[in-house]
Amino acid sequence: MHTARHATVDDLSTVGELLHDFNVEFGEPAPEPHWMAARMAALLESGDTSIIVSGKPAIAVAVVRYRQAIWTSGLEAYLAELYVVPKLRGEGIGTAIMELLHSDALERGTDYISIGVDEEDHDTRRFYERIGFTNRGRDGGYMYYYEREFD
Amino acid sequence: MHTARHATVDDLSTVGELLHDFNVEFGEPAPEPHWMAARMAALLESGDTSIIVSGKPAIAVAVVRYRQAIWTSGLEAYLAELYVVPKLRGEGIGTAIMELLHSDALERGTDYISIGVDEEDHDTRRFYERIGFTNRGRDGGYMYYYEREFD
Repeated sequence: MHTARHATVDDLSTVGELLHDFNVEFGEPAPEPHWMAARMAALLESGDTSIIVSGKPAIAVAVVRYRQAIWTSGLEAYLAELYVVPKLRGEGIGTAIMELLHSDALERGTDYISIGVDEEDHDTRRFYERIGFTNRGRDGGYMYYYEREFD
Repeated sequence: MHTARHATVDDLSTVGELLHDFNVEFGEPAPEPHWMAARMAALLESGDTSIIVSGKPAIAVAVVRYRQAIWTSGLEAYLAELYVVPKLRGEGIGTAIMELLHSDALERGTDYISIGVDEEDHDTRRFYERIGFTNRGRDGGYMYYYEREFD
């Protein structure tokens, strides 16, 4: 039975490694673990970021960003990252993390949460759909996530 | 030839009306204009929000949110809203706004910008694709925007 908790400064070195491994696994540019750890320390310090982990040392991490919503008087949340080490997937760790995220969000007065997911990540999509996320808009069509990088 | 500029406090009453009209047009919950104006004042004050308009009084508005990025040392931007009054669409107002957003983003050290767009909004999607946005991920599949509202 896995549980989730809020990361502290003591976890950041491991969090940096997990986030590095995340991007390596998915073929994205992956800054070095120590750089990621320092970046996460700065984001925690800024107050708009929550880091949830499971295990000690952590074997899973979620990075959540909060800010004031536009259309309501509460907050909006963005689940920027959620990573579980490969050999421990399918054991309910992601679910435990999402449950803590959910209670955090309610406690902070969060009106909605969003996330970007790739079409091919079928397991990930099923996971989010099972816990109440949808990629369908008001007319039943898909909602696409568009992005543009700057040089 | 339309130009874009940064909204000031004097524009917020009109900005509130435009955002209200935006959500009415798209059948979404639409807070009253004066509430939206006050909300935009609070977000401007918080420092993480940029409001770009065209015309005086404004006939188009964009709301952009900035925050520290996770994977790079710069900022990430989110184009939360972009609305042009119906009778003035197709005249390049959106393009003028996006050009100012682009120069703002470079000036602030922004590494990328994202936006959520509905599948059925074909004109909107073509507009963003033309100026360099993509809804395709690393493997060529779509990137979906998932969301969940809290009660």
